[in-house]
Amino acid sequence: MSGVKALTFDVFGTVVDWRSSVSAEVAAFLKRHAVEADAGMFTDRWRREGYAGGMRLVRDGELPFQTADQLHLRMLGILLEELGIEADEAEVQELNRAWHRLHPWIDSPGGLQRLRSRFVVSTLSNGNVDLLVNMARFGGLPWDCVLSAQITGAFKPEPQCYRRAAELLGCPSHEVMMVAAHQGDLLAAARTGMRTAFVPRPDEAGPNFPVDLTPDPAFDIVAGDFHDLAAQLDC
Amino acid sequence: MSGVKALTFDVFGTVVDWRSSVSAEVAAFLKRHAVEADAGMFTDRWRREGYAGGMRLVRDGELPFQTADQLHLRMLGILLEELGIEADEAEVQELNRAWHRLHPWIDSPGGLQRLRSRFVVSTLSNGNVDLLVNMARFGGLPWDCVLSAQITGAFKPEPQCYRRAAELLGCPSHEVMMVAAHQGDLLAAARTGMRTAFVPRPDEAGPNFPVDLTPDPAFDIVAGDFHDLAAQLDC
Repeated sequence: MSGVKALTFDVFGTVVDWRSSVSAEVAAFLKRHAVEADAGMFTDRWRREGYAGGMRLVRDGELPFQTADQLHLRMLGILLEELGIEADEAEVQELNRAWHRLHPWIDSPGGLQRLRSRFVVSTLSNGNVDLLVNMARFGGLPWDCVLSAQITGAFKPEPQCYRRAAELLGCPSHEVMMVAAHQGDLLAAARTGMRTAFVPRPDEAGPNFPVDLTPDPAFDIVAGDFHDLAAQLDC
Repeated sequence: MSGVKALTFDVFGTVVDWRSSVSAEVAAFLKRHAVEADAGMFTDRWRREGYAGGMRLVRDGELPFQTADQLHLRMLGILLEELGIEADEAEVQELNRAWHRLHPWIDSPGGLQRLRSRFVVSTLSNGNVDLLVNMARFGGLPWDCVLSAQITGAFKPEPQCYRRAAELLGCPSHEVMMVAAHQGDLLAAARTGMRTAFVPRPDEAGPNFPVDLTPDPAFDIVAGDFHDLAAQLDC
């Protein structure tokens, strides 16, 4: 892929397995409070209604711009109220920070290290900066740079988010490749002129939300994991 | 130093030895063009009139906000014109990027690695993001995060630069410690509520600009180098 100098990575789902990681902490929390509820379903709703849904509300102007931590906390309050769980502030904050402690997919740290030998590697996530920094320290993710919607001032898939990331990396957009497990993210990046690598993560969403993994023919690369991506990029 | 969670570092002069690194590239360039001129003095003016002076012009509204690379390039053009050197665009750009290839002080990579075992370590520089990323890759600087005036939207010592950095690191200001070889930088950080560590670098400025290294009594820590800083912070 000639001319590519930097790779920007979606993080939740692409680099880390958010669902297993968060579900495990939710399950422990529910058990502690003696509540019978499905931890996987709790986690799915936290992600879909809280994070994805929250960002939609921000984009539509119904909520002010806020961090992923704040969106998570807002939804966590709703979920705990629905289940009638009363927890003290510190415990709620601690559970909310489960999103800072997500386990990488098994190929992520080593694959990133290989890719880094040849390219600048950066996050480009809707998660806030300190969340991404804590996650990298927790999971051993060797980023050169941590870029986020909190820095670019717009959530993906707004074009400004991708354009500003390329600018901060000192590259025209066609020298930056977006890497993601989510086709919409890649198609939005491509519309700003970025190259695209699709790395499907079939286990990301869990059993409740089957995902169509057939790659869009427009993607520059389709890879089985980060080692395969590294091999295809001659690292 | 109880309660400190993140360290933000000034970079030029504090982490890397800009003067020796750039002078060596300038000397090679001058030799190639058969020009008799003092590479150290060229470098001093590039730094003082180009970078520091350029940022002052930006602060005073006489120049629009721009990156360190752009300020360096502007001054390089002036210096080359004064010396009557004609070089092609690619060669000028390559010399301008000498600022991406600065050698760390000998204690910087190892000291940062120690500090990182206990604290989040981030740049907080007026240099642009890609410059800082390239410099980190060149010198093996293990940053958790690359923050810069290009991200905060204001050059140091504007208070907004420090405040926004703390916000992006997810900390109140008193949980962040600014580390610098420059007293003005630290005093400005302290005025926003940050903690301060002074690490004087007596060889930074070269022989033409003697610097008063007597520490301001307000600093929380004065350290001989990054290993001493790590020891004082129990790393």
